[in-house]
Amino acid sequence: MRPSNFNLKKIGKAPGTLTYTGNKTRDKTILELITYNDESYKKERQDNIESISFMKEDINWLNIYGLNDTNQIDEIGERFEINNLLLEDILSIGQRPKIDYNSNYVFIVLKMLSFNKEEFKIEEEQVSFVLKDNFLLTFQEREGDIFDKVRNRIESVDSDIKKYGADYLLYSLIDNIVDNNYLLLKELQTMIDKVEISIIEENYDDKLKDIYKLRKELMVVKTSVWPIRDILFELINRVSLITSDVKEYFKDVNDHVAQIMDYIMIYRETINGLFDTNMSATSNRMNEIMTTLTLYSTIFIPLTFITGVYGMNFVHMPELDERWSYPLFWVISIIVCGGMVTFFKRKKWL
Amino acid sequence: MRPSNFNLKKIGKAPGTLTYTGNKTRDKTILELITYNDESYKKERQDNIESISFMKEDINWLNIYGLNDTNQIDEIGERFEINNLLLEDILSIGQRPKIDYNSNYVFIVLKMLSFNKEEFKIEEEQVSFVLKDNFLLTFQEREGDIFDKVRNRIESVDSDIKKYGADYLLYSLIDNIVDNNYLLLKELQTMIDKVEISIIEENYDDKLKDIYKLRKELMVVKTSVWPIRDILFELINRVSLITSDVKEYFKDVNDHVAQIMDYIMIYRETINGLFDTNMSATSNRMNEIMTTLTLYSTIFIPLTFITGVYGMNFVHMPELDERWSYPLFWVISIIVCGGMVTFFKRKKWL
Amino acid sequence: MRPSNFNLKKIGKAPGTLTYTGNKTRDKTILELITYNDESYKKERQDNIESISFMKEDINWLNIYGLNDTNQIDEIGERFEINNLLLEDILSIGQRPKIDYNSNYVFIVLKMLSFNKEEFKIEEEQVSFVLKDNFLLTFQEREGDIFDKVRNRIESVDSDIKKYGADYLLYSLIDNIVDNNYLLLKELQTMIDKVEISIIEENYDDKLKDIYKLRKELMVVKTSVWPIRDILFELINRVSLITSDVKEYFKDVNDHVAQIMDYIMIYRETINGLFDTNMSATSNRMNEIMTTLTLYSTIFIPLTFITGVYGMNFVHMPELDERWSYPLFWVISIIVCGGMVTFFKRKKWL
Amino acid sequence: MRPSNFNLKKIGKAPGTLTYTGNKTRDKTILELITYNDESYKKERQDNIESISFMKEDINWLNIYGLNDTNQIDEIGERFEINNLLLEDILSIGQRPKIDYNSNYVFIVLKMLSFNKEEFKIEEEQVSFVLKDNFLLTFQEREGDIFDKVRNRIESVDSDIKKYGADYLLYSLIDNIVDNNYLLLKELQTMIDKVEISIIEENYDDKLKDIYKLRKELMVVKTSVWPIRDILFELINRVSLITSDVKEYFKDVNDHVAQIMDYIMIYRETINGLFDTNMSATSNRMNEIMTTLTLYSTIFIPLTFITGVYGMNFVHMPELDERWSYPLFWVISIIVCGGMVTFFKRKKWL
Amino acid sequence: MRPSNFNLKKIGKAPGTLTYTGNKTRDKTILELITYNDESYKKERQDNIESISFMKEDINWLNIYGLNDTNQIDEIGERFEINNLLLEDILSIGQRPKIDYNSNYVFIVLKMLSFNKEEFKIEEEQVSFVLKDNFLLTFQEREGDIFDKVRNRIESVDSDIKKYGADYLLYSLIDNIVDNNYLLLKELQTMIDKVEISIIEENYDDKLKDIYKLRKELMVVKTSVWPIRDILFELINRVSLITSDVKEYFKDVNDHVAQIMDYIMIYRETINGLFDTNMSATSNRMNEIMTTLTLYSTIFIPLTFITGVYGMNFVHMPELDERWSYPLFWVISIIVCGGMVTFFKRKKWL
Repeated sequence: MRPSNFNLKKIGKAPGTLTYTGNKTRDKTILELITYNDESYKKERQDNIESISFMKEDINWLNIYGLNDTNQIDEIGERFEINNLLLEDILSIGQRPKIDYNSNYVFIVLKMLSFNKEEFKIEEEQVSFVLKDNFLLTFQEREGDIFDKVRNRIESVDSDIKKYGADYLLYSLIDNIVDNNYLLLKELQTMIDKVEISIIEENYDDKLKDIYKLRKELMVVKTSVWPIRDILFELINRVSLITSDVKEYFKDVNDHVAQIMDYIMIYRETINGLFDTNMSATSNRMNEIMTTLTLYSTIFIPLTFITGVYGMNFVHMPELDERWSYPLFWVISIIVCGGMVTFFKRKKWL
Repeated sequence: MRPSNFNLKKIGKAPGTLTYTGNKTRDKTILELITYNDESYKKERQDNIESISFMKEDINWLNIYGLNDTNQIDEIGERFEINNLLLEDILSIGQRPKIDYNSNYVFIVLKMLSFNKEEFKIEEEQVSFVLKDNFLLTFQEREGDIFDKVRNRIESVDSDIKKYGADYLLYSLIDNIVDNNYLLLKELQTMIDKVEISIIEENYDDKLKDIYKLRKELMVVKTSVWPIRDILFELINRVSLITSDVKEYFKDVNDHVAQIMDYIMIYRETINGLFDTNMSATSNRMNEIMTTLTLYSTIFIPLTFITGVYGMNFVHMPELDERWSYPLFWVISIIVCGGMVTFFKRKKWL
Repeated sequence: MRPSNFNLKKIGKAPGTLTYTGNKTRDKTILELITYNDESYKKERQDNIESISFMKEDINWLNIYGLNDTNQIDEIGERFEINNLLLEDILSIGQRPKIDYNSNYVFIVLKMLSFNKEEFKIEEEQVSFVLKDNFLLTFQEREGDIFDKVRNRIESVDSDIKKYGADYLLYSLIDNIVDNNYLLLKELQTMIDKVEISIIEENYDDKLKDIYKLRKELMVVKTSVWPIRDILFELINRVSLITSDVKEYFKDVNDHVAQIMDYIMIYRETINGLFDTNMSATSNRMNEIMTTLTLYSTIFIPLTFITGVYGMNFVHMPELDERWSYPLFWVISIIVCGGMVTFFKRKKWL
Repeated sequence: MRPSNFNLKKIGKAPGTLTYTGNKTRDKTILELITYNDESYKKERQDNIESISFMKEDINWLNIYGLNDTNQIDEIGERFEINNLLLEDILSIGQRPKIDYNSNYVFIVLKMLSFNKEEFKIEEEQVSFVLKDNFLLTFQEREGDIFDKVRNRIESVDSDIKKYGADYLLYSLIDNIVDNNYLLLKELQTMIDKVEISIIEENYDDKLKDIYKLRKELMVVKTSVWPIRDILFELINRVSLITSDVKEYFKDVNDHVAQIMDYIMIYRETINGLFDTNMSATSNRMNEIMTTLTLYSTIFIPLTFITGVYGMNFVHMPELDERWSYPLFWVISIIVCGGMVTFFKRKKWL
Repeated sequence: MRPSNFNLKKIGKAPGTLTYTGNKTRDKTILELITYNDESYKKERQDNIESISFMKEDINWLNIYGLNDTNQIDEIGERFEINNLLLEDILSIGQRPKIDYNSNYVFIVLKMLSFNKEEFKIEEEQVSFVLKDNFLLTFQEREGDIFDKVRNRIESVDSDIKKYGADYLLYSLIDNIVDNNYLLLKELQTMIDKVEISIIEENYDDKLKDIYKLRKELMVVKTSVWPIRDILFELINRVSLITSDVKEYFKDVNDHVAQIMDYIMIYRETINGLFDTNMSATSNRMNEIMTTLTLYSTIFIPLTFITGVYGMNFVHMPELDERWSYPLFWVISIIVCGGMVTFFKRKKWL
């Protein structure tokens, strides 16, 4: 949901024209097929849809990495009879998370968020899902490890995943993506805590920019997570392809999304609170310094005036000749000084 | 609802995998069974589900303290045919308050809030309820006294609780948890009053951090209480297991939750008001001091200039030799001083 | 809706336990019965429900003043078959405005607000209504004059009230309570106007605390008035006990409540506007003073430097011996002074 | 919707008691009847309902100016069988815009807003409409020209108005009142533009009070316009008296109201933006001046110190006797001065 | 949606009176007809509706440029039996985006936004659509290139557009207008980035006015885009003239609008964040300078006092005659100076 992902390349083009709007990488499109049933498991890697042999009886999970090669994507679309508008959504990287479905297929676009600590920036990867019969297709921009945990669970002999259909696999992957946000929240929490400590301990770091960035990144998370609620609502209440057993699991994901939204709300308020507190604290500290210094100067002002008076070169200044004048000057100075300090203390200015 | 309770341990695991996400304590799981009917009452304490003898005719209230021992929890789940997803929710301490139910059972997760005065922090304990026939199971992280008042009411000979079924017991416990929030609000009120007095009396305490913490803690309360409304809505309007008599009582709890939400809203506004007022008051006070001091200095500036003039060593300065020069200097000084004070007073600057 | 009214006394108690949560006063419970039909009118005063003789054919309005004596209230409850939960609500002074009803009775709790000018504080009195057949019961904490206008209307020979049933009496009383809020708004308006004038005329009163209090009190009004909308919605659309003629009148009350909510919204915005304007105005005024003073000082700084230069005791300072030096000093001083004033004026700093 | 219009006079009175809550003016109630059909047109002016001759076959538009004389209003009410509650609403000047209707009549109260430039204040006039068969009654507080445009259209030979019934006349008048708000928005726009220019050109007008007043007046407009949406919703969807042809026209009014609400929202945001920008700009300008002055002073501080040093009267100060001392002093002064200016420039402080 | 487009010219006029409320330009109304079927394509340009020959079998797209000539528009309206109220909407340039339809026609008004970089201002052009059978009429204020991309697609031999009906053409044009907003967002993004960099790099540009303008322009975009959601909702769910195939495409447009709204929300928050950060940063920077300068002055204050003391002309000042006095003065000066710097550093003030 980064503005850099604007679909500018597509304005005025016919809908259904396949254009990849992400960053061009040199990666070829790679296809990885995992087929399994409750007993067996097989993994195959190809760079061409033709060379892949699907197992019609088993559950087929086809990972597609790299979306540069629009021809390849087009072929896959044809092979699985995917509507051109949907293929367009898969390639359109600035796409908002969405769901589309009918009685034959479910199509979902999600955002996988990860935190780039060095640049203090949340990065997104778009992941699309197409569920059709016992086939599940997942499209990613580049090869990554985000689904490794699920892959491991499938590989393990006694996996629960093998007992269910492709819809359960879809659930497992979406659950994985949603729960991944907790890691992100954890990072944000760490950043917030750092700023909070820095404010409470009155360090002199530049908290302003950190707060500004936190605000901005939080908004990115919010915009990515918010539409998932609608997607899950559709999945749970409307989509007929999902079995009711698996819908129960999706309700669980829904709880997690609700919780993440709660956190985002809390973080938002906390960050606003931090901003206000920081502004007030900075201003208070400044004021404190200024007051102290000003009071300090104020004490010297009348004394300096007196020294000025007796620095004048009038011929007729009787005090100048008196023995006691100079000691008296010091006495008066100390009295004035003490009197002002007492006055300021009583007024609670010092 | 503390970020520290993030379900990080569970990302990528199969749903239904039992993992306790709370703080590991060394406490064993303890089971306490209270059985009663309108005449008799019995209490039993075991550390093993096997050793417990339930009274199928009576109402059975099984307290489970300590959720470390996931095997134990698993056994309990099997004994009462509780879905694995629900068991997972019970153990997942960062769980959002939720309700799940069908015609056989009602499952509720709530947060018990308490105020830790020393750390100025609200602490949460997760409490889960499973209602099934005349059985009520309650799961707590550690043994505590929060339900003692209800226990006492059951023990008393002429208790109203004994006249109703297990759903009324559920109501009594939830009512207890909800009303417990009043204690919390009382604490917050005390804190707010303290800050308010401190601002109005213009004390020099550090009000900023208190206000920041109040804001933060209030948000924790809000996030815990808010979902209870949905839970109660379901209980009152949808759940078939609850008799309509007891539903009337739940409406009463609903009124309390609405009132607590009102208070939270009021507190929120009040705290914002305090923050603004504090900021303005601090800034006004500072300005007042600065103005006074600056005016004070301003009066001396022309006088000091005059002393400077007659401190110059020019050979030809006719005033220096006159007898009346020095007294005149003082007269002018007093006139300038008085004139400026009058001017400032008329301008309402002083 | 004051936090001081927290139902702390009731946590953990059985529902339906009668506990008066208001301020204990020594007042005995007093019962005042007004019976009337379209021809006759009678008033009776007792301190005991037993001694009262109701007129089953007429409309009976029973005022109950003082809620200390829970036994008395209990007896009244029994006499009129009022559910214990409702009696509890009557006695629970921190109760949120609410309505409860079935085909036999209507039960309403409202807040009567009045403004305590001396303490700058809105005070609440809880008033409860029970409508049953041609009986209307009103419960107040202490004897007061709030319903006097209605009483007078009943006493007058040709009253419209006598033409209708007890539901119209209920309407008249609720209308009275709602319209009473206009008096309150009038007070708030006066306070707001005072602060507004004080800001516009730039008086030096402490406007901050007034604004803070206004904000706080407005919130109390809002929380009291808001739930009345729901109550009226129920009365107009759902309650079968109210005749459709009287429902028309309740719609009128609804208009008033909507208007009061509008005012509260306007006041809220106005007070926020006042706060912002005051903060800005104070800060501007301060800045104006500081700038003026600083400019003033700045003019003297170079002059004082020059006096310093010629106050130095160097042996070889050719200017010191010249006749024109001292007059020249004054000329330069005046030129510098004038130049700076011109410069500041051109820069619009002065 | 001005607080000055509080219905204080009516608290505790029986509903239906006719009390005029507006400003007492000495104007008598004047009745102006316009009757027309698609061919003829007649205008008649009386001060008494008795003397008016209605044309039952034609469309009758009865203007009532001046609401002082409640008897007169009462008579009109009786003549047209208008419910007393509605008559009350007509006279109650602080009335919120509202609609009431059944199958016989439509009753509408609206606010006519006009901008009093001299007092910088929006003024309201309440206009009430009663539509019954081919009769339309309009009630205004004083005789005015707001409906002149409609009157002219009726008078013109070939008017569209004559082709429709009284409901179309009602539409024309309401359309007139709603569109009149554009004039108001235009005035507000002018004010906003004035303040905006004043801020951008950094004039020294008192923008704060203008902004405060703009905020306040905008709120008055909002509160007057907001309820019209509900009124139009009822007119378009529920009121059976309005023919479906005319309903199409009311949809058009609805579009205008939606647009006015949009403008109000935009203005609100703009004014908030102006306030913030003004505050920041003022503060920046102030800071700029202060910094410049402070830097200026800072340059003189060490120089003044040096003059002080050589103004000391110590007997043994070797520098005093040297020839090059005084020229050196000036050299050092210029170097220090130049160095500091360079330093400040490099630090971008100057 | 610019206030300058107020419909002031129309107040009080009969509805359906055709008045062009835009800027009078000298352009004549130009009609451009594009007719096509799946095989052929023809383009014709006339300045008169009479001279145009429509192809009843083909799809006819009639572009009308220039709305000055209301007679011409009237004739077109008559020719296509367009309701006068709709023609009025077409000419009323300040019109809010809206949809109107029945089973015969669909009428849509939209805003085409473009960014005028030089004046930093978003400009609007109103575009109206009338769809009727296989006729699509588009009305624009002046001849422009906004639909060129669509025109090109039609001209190309193998265009998808030719396979569908006029509703698909309508979709293509609306899609074009909506996607055009991405260009606008891109411009806003560039502006925001510029301000952001300027704040983070602490440049001295006037960021305030940029932020104010950004806020204001963003609001214009929001008000233009917001109503499109309602229009699309109607198109997708209610309008019977649109085939279900094309409705799928409109859903796609809906996704884009949702995304644009997301961006607007993000920008709004970002701009607010920028404003706050800028204000804080400016204030911090200022405070930093002031503190440094004040500390600097504070160091000289006691030293200047000492020079004052020994500049006094008292006859009896023993220190003056001592040899070591002057060197001691310097030693003391350096010690005082060093001591204060150390003190300030330890207090973290420097």
